[in-house]
Amino acid sequence: MRVIYNEQMGELATMLGEMAGMAGSAMDRATQSLLQADLALAEQVITESDRIAEMITLAEERAFALLALQAPVAGDLRQVVSAIQIVADVNRMGALALHVAKVARRRHPNHALPEAVNGYFAEMGRIAVSMGNTAKEVLETRDPERAAQLNDEDEAMDDLHRHLFSLLMDREWKHGVAAAVDVTLLGRYYERFADHAVEIGRRVVFLVTGVLPPDQDSADAERI
Amino acid sequence: MRVIYNEQMGELATMLGEMAGMAGSAMDRATQSLLQADLALAEQVITESDRIAEMITLAEERAFALLALQAPVAGDLRQVVSAIQIVADVNRMGALALHVAKVARRRHPNHALPEAVNGYFAEMGRIAVSMGNTAKEVLETRDPERAAQLNDEDEAMDDLHRHLFSLLMDREWKHGVAAAVDVTLLGRYYERFADHAVEIGRRVVFLVTGVLPPDQDSADAERI
Repeated sequence: MRVIYNEQMGELATMLGEMAGMAGSAMDRATQSLLQADLALAEQVITESDRIAEMITLAEERAFALLALQAPVAGDLRQVVSAIQIVADVNRMGALALHVAKVARRRHPNHALPEAVNGYFAEMGRIAVSMGNTAKEVLETRDPERAAQLNDEDEAMDDLHRHLFSLLMDREWKHGVAAAVDVTLLGRYYERFADHAVEIGRRVVFLVTGVLPPDQDSADAERI
Repeated sequence: MRVIYNEQMGELATMLGEMAGMAGSAMDRATQSLLQADLALAEQVITESDRIAEMITLAEERAFALLALQAPVAGDLRQVVSAIQIVADVNRMGALALHVAKVARRRHPNHALPEAVNGYFAEMGRIAVSMGNTAKEVLETRDPERAAQLNDEDEAMDDLHRHLFSLLMDREWKHGVAAAVDVTLLGRYYERFADHAVEIGRRVVFLVTGVLPPDQDSADAERI
């Protein structure tokens, strides 16, 4: 039993890691489509989101089969339960990348973003991709130190998000209300993407150390 | 075993229902604090959010204990797995009510909302509370028809959200960019609250009928 369990749990963890990497890669292309008003790229992200959705269903089924057929106990059981929770986070990361691509598509042939904020979104996109990859590594290696790195990346994301909001709230904002609305929502999508990656890290730390790190999210509405 | 399982699963479902009701009630008070710039009420929501957070942890532990000690199979196992997924949705509903209360607190003694949109938020608040209560009933009764009602309520929420965005995007918007940013985020919080309630309904329908209704969320970024 244990051998089969270990093999199947390893496969599930690899699958979750791949999905986190895919969500990061989707956010990468979504960001490019946004910055360059590239409709084809936005469409590609939208089409490929079906693939992530299929993997979500498959991962949920595999986790359920592991519980049903291997009847894991103690730490093994905790791993499968965490996997079920992590699937939900990866699912949201994919959905948020999709949202970004849809904004790019909706505003095409115009740019959704005023040029003045391109730098912010380029950097938020870069951090999102990196966090997708870090989450992937954390899922594969279960290294708590790598997981802690997600917190640092999240802080960098939050800093950018805060700066972006002070730009928006500034009387000098000259790009109108419609652009402000898009920038507000887009900023929120990147920030939530980062929060879900952090959440994956927390779950993995809990598995390895038995202690669930404090939830950062309760602070997130205060940043703005 | 089965008797204990049934009793404990019933308790867990009741607890999830209570938490959904509490999230609805928190959104009710958060909405009032927003509409009336009532700092004391906002603070109350913020303080009481700790109580929901404690119940989240307790519900997760109970679901885990059910798996570990009762080793449910087949449909019973599926119920516990769904409960774990539903905990995450209820958690987000509570967090979104908290976000609304924090916006009210941040803008106090000013009103966060321009008077012109008060009616929208009063109605979105009303629907959110109703959806919290419907989710509670669905969790307690497992009635798929009640669950379908969540979709109708979500459509009403989406309609309001769409109208709100057309107001924001209109050249006639006279309330400035800062108010538009607040309205954008607040609108998103209510809309996401509704999505999570729908998600709870989907999980319950799946438990009862074996068929997972289609995910509405993939459409949600297109509405705006």
